[in-house]
Order: sequence, then structure tokens, then C-alpha cells
Amino acid sequence: MATIGDICVSASINLLSALAFLFAFGILRLQPFNDRVYFPKWYLKGIRGSPTGSNRVKKFVNLDFGTYIRFLNWMPAALHMPEPELIDHAGLDSAVYIRIYLLGVKIFAPITLLAFMVLVPVNWFGKTLQARGPKDLTFSSIDKISISNIPFGSDRFWVHIVMSYVFSSWTCYSLYKEYKVIAEMRLRFLAAERRRPDQFTVLVRNVPPDPDESVSEHIEHFFCVNHPDHYLMHQVVYNANKLACIAAEKKKLINWHVYYQNKYERNPSKRPTTRTGFLGFLGNKVDAIDHYTAIIDNLSKQEAEERESIINNPNAVIPAAFVSFKTRWAAAVCAQTQQTSNPTIWLTEWAPEPRDVFWENLAIPYFDLNMRRLLMAVALFFLTFFFMIPIALVQSLANIEAIEKVLPFLKPIIEKPSIKSVIQGFLPGLALKIFLIMLPKILMTMSKMEGITSLSGLDRRSASKYYLFVLVNVFLGSVITGTAFQQLGQFINQPSTEFTKTVGSTIPMKATFFITYIMIDGWAGIAAEILRLAPLITFHVKNTFLVKTEQDRQNAMDPGSLEFATSEPRIQLYFMLGHVYAPVTPFLLPFIVVFFAFAYMIFRHQIINVYNQQYESGGSFWPDIHGRVISGLIISQILLMGLLSTRGTDKSTLVLIAQPILTLWFHRYCKGSNGEGYT
Amino acid sequence: MATIGDICVSASINLLSALAFLFAFGILRLQPFNDRVYFPKWYLKGIRGSPTGSNRVKKFVNLDFGTYIRFLNWMPAALHMPEPELIDHAGLDSAVYIRIYLLGVKIFAPITLLAFMVLVPVNWFGKTLQARGPKDLTFSSIDKISISNIPFGSDRFWVHIVMSYVFSSWTCYSLYKEYKVIAEMRLRFLAAERRRPDQFTVLVRNVPPDPDESVSEHIEHFFCVNHPDHYLMHQVVYNANKLACIAAEKKKLINWHVYYQNKYERNPSKRPTTRTGFLGFLGNKVDAIDHYTAIIDNLSKQEAEERESIINNPNAVIPAAFVSFKTRWAAAVCAQTQQTSNPTIWLTEWAPEPRDVFWENLAIPYFDLNMRRLLMAVALFFLTFFFMIPIALVQSLANIEAIEKVLPFLKPIIEKPSIKSVIQGFLPGLALKIFLIMLPKILMTMSKMEGITSLSGLDRRSASKYYLFVLVNVFLGSVITGTAFQQLGQFINQPSTEFTKTVGSTIPMKATFFITYIMIDGWAGIAAEILRLAPLITFHVKNTFLVKTEQDRQNAMDPGSLEFATSEPRIQLYFMLGHVYAPVTPFLLPFIVVFFAFAYMIFRHQIINVYNQQYESGGSFWPDIHGRVISGLIISQILLMGLLSTRGTDKSTLVLIAQPILTLWFHRYCKGSNGEGYT
Repeated sequence: MATIGDICVSASINLLSALAFLFAFGILRLQPFNDRVYFPKWYLKGIRGSPTGSNRVKKFVNLDFGTYIRFLNWMPAALHMPEPELIDHAGLDSAVYIRIYLLGVKIFAPITLLAFMVLVPVNWFGKTLQARGPKDLTFSSIDKISISNIPFGSDRFWVHIVMSYVFSSWTCYSLYKEYKVIAEMRLRFLAAERRRPDQFTVLVRNVPPDPDESVSEHIEHFFCVNHPDHYLMHQVVYNANKLACIAAEKKKLINWHVYYQNKYERNPSKRPTTRTGFLGFLGNKVDAIDHYTAIIDNLSKQEAEERESIINNPNAVIPAAFVSFKTRWAAAVCAQTQQTSNPTIWLTEWAPEPRDVFWENLAIPYFDLNMRRLLMAVALFFLTFFFMIPIALVQSLANIEAIEKVLPFLKPIIEKPSIKSVIQGFLPGLALKIFLIMLPKILMTMSKMEGITSLSGLDRRSASKYYLFVLVNVFLGSVITGTAFQQLGQFINQPSTEFTKTVGSTIPMKATFFITYIMIDGWAGIAAEILRLAPLITFHVKNTFLVKTEQDRQNAMDPGSLEFATSEPRIQLYFMLGHVYAPVTPFLLPFIVVFFAFAYMIFRHQIINVYNQQYESGGSFWPDIHGRVISGLIISQILLMGLLSTRGTDKSTLVLIAQPILTLWFHRYCKGSNGEGYT
Repeated sequence: MATIGDICVSASINLLSALAFLFAFGILRLQPFNDRVYFPKWYLKGIRGSPTGSNRVKKFVNLDFGTYIRFLNWMPAALHMPEPELIDHAGLDSAVYIRIYLLGVKIFAPITLLAFMVLVPVNWFGKTLQARGPKDLTFSSIDKISISNIPFGSDRFWVHIVMSYVFSSWTCYSLYKEYKVIAEMRLRFLAAERRRPDQFTVLVRNVPPDPDESVSEHIEHFFCVNHPDHYLMHQVVYNANKLACIAAEKKKLINWHVYYQNKYERNPSKRPTTRTGFLGFLGNKVDAIDHYTAIIDNLSKQEAEERESIINNPNAVIPAAFVSFKTRWAAAVCAQTQQTSNPTIWLTEWAPEPRDVFWENLAIPYFDLNMRRLLMAVALFFLTFFFMIPIALVQSLANIEAIEKVLPFLKPIIEKPSIKSVIQGFLPGLALKIFLIMLPKILMTMSKMEGITSLSGLDRRSASKYYLFVLVNVFLGSVITGTAFQQLGQFINQPSTEFTKTVGSTIPMKATFFITYIMIDGWAGIAAEILRLAPLITFHVKNTFLVKTEQDRQNAMDPGSLEFATSEPRIQLYFMLGHVYAPVTPFLLPFIVVFFAFAYMIFRHQIINVYNQQYESGGSFWPDIHGRVISGLIISQILLMGLLSTRGTDKSTLVLIAQPILTLWFHRYCKGSNGEGYT
């Protein structure tokens, strides 16, 4: 166990690195040549343009030293923008997303206060650890203020039980209030928006084939018969992959055309030339502008032909359509009701925003959809619990001997002791690291295979998969050391009470580990987020070597977006850590509060200045967040039961059984009272 | 373990008693004075009347001996009525209900055939039991054809694994087909019905209070605004308990009036008299007809006043109403959609049939409803697992010493050895028996407290509670001897694999017990059902002592109804036994098939001739039945896994893991493809 001194060292290192990141950001953001990296959102909105001016230096470096003095003033600026303006500027999704951090502060700040006022004194005077005498010096001050300091079977555990109830009640109350606030924000947002086509539109899938009619006619007739007063029009969906390829190709060529045009304008004396062969290096030399004009014309013709042929080809139509109604009410009715007696056809749901549609999945039949879900559920299980097996396999193959066998010419280099040790230390970790980097992509692919029809749905689905993975492999994997596979074995072969006891009793010992984790991943990691090192480098590399036109420069900006599918489950880990350690080791709580407050500020800045959301779902992910906070809370309650039952308080822990039941009930109540159909 | 001989004895006893019941029924049903006991449905339909004729004897005893020869011809008659006529005659609920038995035959007849063709030979030549030599004679022929005869770790278990998959697939296929058939029956039934008000009506609950308007006005305005084109009218619900009491009282008095009127008509020379005091025995002697006329007039006035005062009293209106629309479509839309942004008020659902409404529960607020559900879930848990505790308490109090203490004068009688042994054997069972008789009532009360608004919903809810009780206390309680409480302890303190192993390995040993159970409860019990001993006796007692008027005789008939809440979970037990034993002890299967076929015939007869359903829900209970058959199937699959893993086939049982997952998936698929909104 680490002492408070160790933690202080670790804290100062992480604080320093976080401050270094912030300082670097403070300086870099003031330089005009980084403007597109740190303020891309304003460029995309058209409010900010490339700096123009006579002074070439001023275009790149900020020489106004007055601004350096106020280099931290982005912080109040980030918090300054009022919420309605924020929603208007960045969208409701982003505004709701940062409220998750705010919720973390709201939940854990009072809990921290209470825990330090009540639990810390109770633990401090527990005196178990002192009693063991001066020989046993491994116990540190952190343990003195944690539950470990309470003697076996002491009545003091009642304080922890009561506090656990208080903490849970406070969490539920905060969640309940937040749900109300967000439901209202969402309603106000939907009501205030300008008329959007998707508010009048329903996505119809699994249109049954009809021998006599085309898909389009069939849909027309079906809705004219069944919704005669409200049906307005429909738009069938075409499978237009080839057309999309042509359009992309054309866009690229137009960019080249613009580039040569600009070149010519700057230097009208010489018409630019290019070669027709490979990448413009081989082949005949031709006039570039004429050449591209000709190809573009040709492609435009092809495009028109292809478009024509798709529209006339009945096989290009997929059995799905967007059906629009005259009123929002009619669309709501159609989206929420079953259309025929056979519920596997004519499936209706609210149409996603146009930007939000995931086109590839619109044509999946009902049975396939069910089959895919089953397969993906099984795959997720194996991925979560058995992912170490293939990695161990790769690790066992990718050792030095194997490399020497396959690539014998590397042998002299590898055999050097210094390099050998680096490779030996590095290789096993590499496979795991590559897997972890790939994981969000794998999960997203799995979600895509499940046949979800909107990007927001895909994000939500991947997030819940990632949450499971984080829960099993990061949280439980750190508490019970061992792979998830071994945990699964323990879980199956031990009585369920024994399992919670094992996990519960290990928890206090892991407090320092998680404190360090919070500081590295939470503090320094979030500070690194604002520095945007990767986009900074890629932008400058691209800007130097690849950018030809203004269009290219626009593309070189990588505003990114809130990676809901990966970052939200990571926030949930903090919620869970907070709940697990609140009654056990209150010392961990301030670290969590600092994380939430700091992340709130950083991400508020990012959504104002950087991120460019792909779609706007109107905060429809909130029920998922609510549910996951609740499930983290329930896990923490069960683990506390397990912990206390190993401390000689078997009877008093019976009082704790009611807690998860009540929490679960609260969840159901919230779900009902905020509308289960909240999507 | 019982031998085949023992089972034959038991079978012959039960068969004989079943035949005796059937014979008695065959004779009794031919007697005209039992007509109202055995054919009440026809009386209620008005098709059959009291026998009239000059011969007094013929009115009571059937002297036409020709009919006695054909005394079993009710059996073909019961099967003769075609299904559409049956639906017309007895309602869809009843017709669907007996299809459960038919489903049992459809599932288990082929399974039995296959099991006897494949598994019995495989088991027979397993030769484990013979190998133990002639000394070990306790193993009977049943065990020779059960899985116990296969040697440890034999490859023959693969046959059982494959057959388990075949059985499960066949069950799922049958269920799938049956679901389709019943969904179609339901749709046809709903489409063919005459227009009924409840098809145009929605039940609205939790109408919020309004300071300026009455409930009725508030509802009127709300629906005029929100459904302007479709709203027709509404009917608020009054709290009219007092009025109901008066109406019941009046009905009773009118019956007495009719009685004296009849008496006077038969003997016009003497006007009947009565006394005004206690039960007509004390007080002044008055002219009976005048007396009752006067009281009835008085009550009628009171009734009118009460009705007036209820209608004018705004506090008598409860915040719920039946809202009718101009079209079925509009009602469907209103019932299926959320009315306001706050989903805890203006709750809408399809109105139950008028007969089906459970009036007491219409006025429960949303929060209370959630609270009640939570409390009832907890209560159900305790009832299921801890019901033995209060009974054991009662048993420990109600022993002979306690009786002697409280009622010392009984001492000389009780102390006699013969009586003492009877009481000692009888008393402990009495408390349990009383509890088991009370159980359906207790469960129904619990369902009522949950706030369900229709009788059909109450029945469905109670059935699912009873199913849990039967599963835990009858099935698991018989397999693992011990109370449910002890089982729960085992379940929690053992690893989950260990628990299934314990249960699984005990299963083959309990086969004979369950065979006996099936014969007693299934064969003789069902045969006793058709004899209707209790209604037979009560009818004749009432007819002799209490019946005064034709109205009274009508009331003395007790047609009863299909007790869905208690009988359906008992059928489910047979489904589960069949699935559990199909791959283990195929010898049990014929008993199940006979039960299903026999019960089908009996209940078909009963719904044609006897039962009078209280309500018609249109077979909306089918999803529950489907779900419970599936859950029984999954339990059987898990137990088979547990069993095989104790027989040295650890690896091959891995193949069985997929089975419950696939079954669960099938269940979800069926639910989706038959419409989750199937209510």
C-alpha cells in the first residue's frame, strides 16, 4: 500500500504534467498559425477566416505580448457562455453531454463533504491499525481514514451503512432532478426548432415485395389507404454506391482544377501543365486546366447517366422509404403504431435526421436483424471475457525467436542486449495496446452489423458495449487481478455470495491504485485532450505538404467530435469508482470531484471552440447515461454488502439488501415517469 | 426406487379411480335433477329450462334405460363441436385455453414416439446397472431405460444431447405455429365481432386536478383540444359504494316479494304474513306482500336520492374516465400514444370490456402504483421462499399439549391413543393444507393491490405469481427435498454450476415420484373435475333448503369458470416435467401425453356445458403461456447440462450451452414477430 507521501509525489507529477499541457495550450492557442487547430468550429461556422494582413510574421506568430499575460483567460471564457446560447451554438447533444460532468460534480461534491465530516473521523478513531503495534508499519495514513481501520464486528459499521443509504439517496435525487431538467431541455429544444423535414417523416422498413407493383407504388398505395388524411409524400431509398463513387471522384478532380486555376491566376504568364499518367508523374504532358475540365465534363455525363439508370432500375430500389406526413402528429402516430397485423413488415420508426441516417442498414430483413443481434450478443460475450486468448496467442508467436526465424537478416540487430531487452519488454504489450486502440472500432463494427439505422443509435449501442468491457476488464480486472476469463471461472465456480465477498474485501486495498489511475487518466489525460497534439501535428504536416486550395485547408482541419461511444463509458467508470469508494475510502472522493470539475471546464471549451458534431439527436442518449449511473450504483451497493459481510457484521448487512432493490425500483420509476418512449 | 410393478399398481389404482369418477359422472349427468349441475351453461344461455312434465319421478330420475347404454357418449359429443362454433358458444378465451392442452399433445406425442424409438434402446443397452451384478437389485426396469443406465463418460451421451436439441427444436416449432394460429384466431375474432363500445373506448387514468374545472369538464376540454376530429364522448367514473349496497339490498327484497307473491298465487285463500323483526322470527306480524312492497318503494326512493347526490357531488367523481372516439383507429391511436409531456398523468390504455373492469383500482395515482408494485414484488419473494416459517410456527403451537392447555375439557378424548395418533398425524398437515387452499386468494389479493384495472389482467398476474410458487415449491421442492428457504440458502452459498449439478443429478431419481404425481393430480384429479362433486352437493343442499324462487334456483347453480390463475400454472408444471424428463427418463412421457389428451377432452366438455366465463379478453393471455413454456424449456435445458456434467461428459456438455441462448432468442423473435403490443 502506498503512503500519503507516495500519493503526493504521484499527484504532483500528474498535476505538473496537467499544468504543462495547459500552459502549452495557453501559448499555442494564441498563435495565429494554430488558429484552425484550436478554433475549427468558428471556421466551419464561417465566423472566423484565415488571418489576412500585410505582416507575414503576424500571420504566424502572435507578437502582441499583452495577450500572453492573460493566457489563462480561456477558462472563464469557456464557462461564460450561457446554456441557451451554448445549445444554439453547439447543439443540444453537446450541451447535454457536458452536463454529465456537471452531474458528477453535483453528486460527488456534497458526498465528499459529508464523507469527510462523518466517515473520516469515525474511521480515524477506529484504531485497529494502531493496535497492531509499531512493527506493522505498512499501513499508511490513507488506511487510517478508510474502513480498514474499523475493528472486526464493530458497531461503527452502522455509520457506514447509514451513510451508504444517504449517498444512494442523494445520488438518486440528483439523477431524478437532472432527468427532469434534461427532459425539459429536450422538449423545449424540439419545440423551439424550425420545422425540419425529419419531424414530419417516418422511416418505413421491410416493405414487403409485391408482384404487381414497384416498391414506390406499393408504399404510395399502402399509405394512401391507411393514412388517407395525413399522408403527404414518400422518398424511396436507392442503392447508389456507384454514383457515390463517381461523385467523390468528381469532387477530387474539381479540387485539382481549382488548384491549377489558382496557380494560373497568380502567374497568368504560364499555363500550368500536368501529365496524364500515374499521379501526374508519367505520361503525356498536357495543359492542366483543359485536361481537368475535360475529365470533369466526362464524369458529369457519367454521373447523369448513372443517376438516370438508378432511377429507372427497379432493382436499385431497396425496400425502405422515408414517408412524410402533413402534420407532426400524424407522423408521431405512424411511427408509434403497428401498421399491419404482421409486425415483421412495414416497420415504422421516427426518421433520423438526414445527417444521422446510417444508409447501409436500411434494407435488412426482419429475420436477419434478429439473427444478427443474437450473433453479436454472443460475440460481445466472447470479446469481453475471452479477448485475452487471441492476444496471448499473438504474444506467444511474436517473440524474438519467431522474428529471427521469419526475418533472419534482422538477427544481428535484435541480438544486441539493449535492443533485445527493449523488444522483449515492448512486444507483449504491443499486441494488447493495438487491440485496445482497435477496440472502439471493433465495437462500432459490431453495432453496425446489428442493423441500427442511425449514427446516434450506433454511438449509443457501441457505448453500452464499451461500458461492459470497461466494467469487466478495467474495474473488475483491476480489483481481482487476473483476466476476465479467470474471473468468469471464479464467478461460475464460486457461490455468488463468495464472489461478492472476494471482490468486496479486495476493494479497500485497491484505493491507491485507482487514485493514481484517476490522476493519470482523468487529470493529465483530460489536460492532454485540450492540447490536441495529434490534430495539431497532422494539421501542420498536411498544411505544409498537401494543401493546395482553400478547400484542402478546410479538409485538413480535424475538428473531431465528442466520441460518445468511447468517452461516455469512461466517465461512467468514474461514477462507479466514486460510488464504490464513497463509504469505503473517502480519501478517493476529492480526486473524482476534481476530475469532474476539470473535465467539465475543458469539454465546455472544446464544444464551444473545437468539436463539430456529425448529427443532432436532441440528447436522446440520456436514458442510457441514467441507466448506467444506476447500474454502477447498484454494483457498488452489492460490493459494499460483500465487503461488510467479511468484517463480522453479517446481520447488519442484511439491512443493505433493501438498497439495490430500492435503487432498481427508482430506476423503473424514473423510466416510467420520464416516458419510456423517450428517444 | 419403485419398480415397474409398483408403478403398475399405482397406475391401476389411479386409473380405476379415474374410471369410477367417469362412470359416476356418466350416470349422474343423465338424471334430470342434476341437470343444472352438469349443464348450467345451457340454462344461462336460456336454451335449456327446468324439466316440466306430469310424471314427478321422471322429473328427478332418468328411467329411459336406453340412454344408460350410451352413457359414455358425452365424450365424442365433447369433441364433436367444431372450433368456430365453440368460439361462438364459449368465447375465444375458453377456446384458446383448451388449445393449451392440445399444444401439450402436439408437442409431447412426437417427442414420446421419438424418445421410445431412439433413447430407450440406447439406454437399454447401456448395461451399467446390470454390470453391478445381481446383488444390487434395487435398480428397476425403469432405470434400465433411463439415462442412469449409461456408463460414466460414455459416448452414448451424445445421443441424449442431440435428442435434447431435437426436442427443443420441435417444441419451438410447435410453439411458433401455435402462436401464429392463435394470433390469427384473435384477429379474426376481433374483426368478426359486432361493434362493441369498448372497441371505441380508451380508459384514461390519473386525470390531473384542475382548480377551475370539474374532472368531467377537464376531460372534455383536454380531448376536444388534443383529438378534435375523433373525440366522441366520455363517461367519468363515480365512487358509488353506497348506491351499490342499496341496489343489492333491493334485489334481495324483490326476491322475497316474488316468493310471497308466488306463495299467495298458489294458495289465494290465505295472504302470507311475516314478522318485521330479526330474520322474520320476531316483531309484529304483518302482511308479507304489503310489507315488502312498502320497503321496496322506500328503498327505490333512497336509491334515486343517492344517485342524484352522487351525480351532483364533485367529490364522488374519481380522476378516471372512459373516453369514446368516433373510430376504432382513433381509439387505437389514443390508447397507444402518450398524451402529454408528463407521462405520469393522462395515462391511456385500451378500455377493458365492461364486464372485465376492476373498478376498485381505477383511481390509484402513479406514484402509489409504483410503490405498490415494489411492495408486492418483495412480498411475493418472501411468500415464495419463506412461507414455511409462519406455518412451522403455527404447527409448533397447534400440538396436542397446546390444545389440552387451552381446552382442558377435551383432554380425556384426546388422550385416547387412537384419536391422539390421528390428531398428531393430521394437525401439522392442516396448517399447510389451509395455506395451500388460501394461496390463490392471497395471490389474487396481491395482484389487486398492484392496481391492475381488469379482471383478465388480475388473472394473468396471479397466474404468473402462482407459476413461480409452483416452480419453486412443487418442482424444485420435490427434486431437492427441503423447504424453499433451504434451497435459497443452497442457491446463494453454492456456486451456480454446483447448484444445477445438484438439482440435475437428483432428477432421474425422482422420476417415479413424478409419475405418481401425474397420475394422482393429472389423471384422477382431472376426472374428479368433471364430476363436480362440490357444486353437486351445494346445489342440492341449496335447492332443498334455501331456494324460494326461480331466481334463487338460478343463483344456486354454480357454473364456475376456468380458474385461469390456478389451473394454468399447473398445466405449466406438466410442460416442464415433460421437457425435463424427455431426454432423461422417457418412460414418464406417455403419462404426460395421456394427461394432456384426457384433460383436453374433459375441459372441452366443461367449457361447452358448464363453465360461464366472467369476461372475454380475446385470448390475450397467450403470450404469457408461450413465455412460461419457454422458461420451463430453458430450465430443463440447464438442468440437463447440470446432470450430464456429473456423468463425466464435461466437454460435450459445452455443446448444450448454446441451447438456452438459442431458445431465449427464439422467444424474443416470437415476441417481436407476433407484436409485442398483443394485448
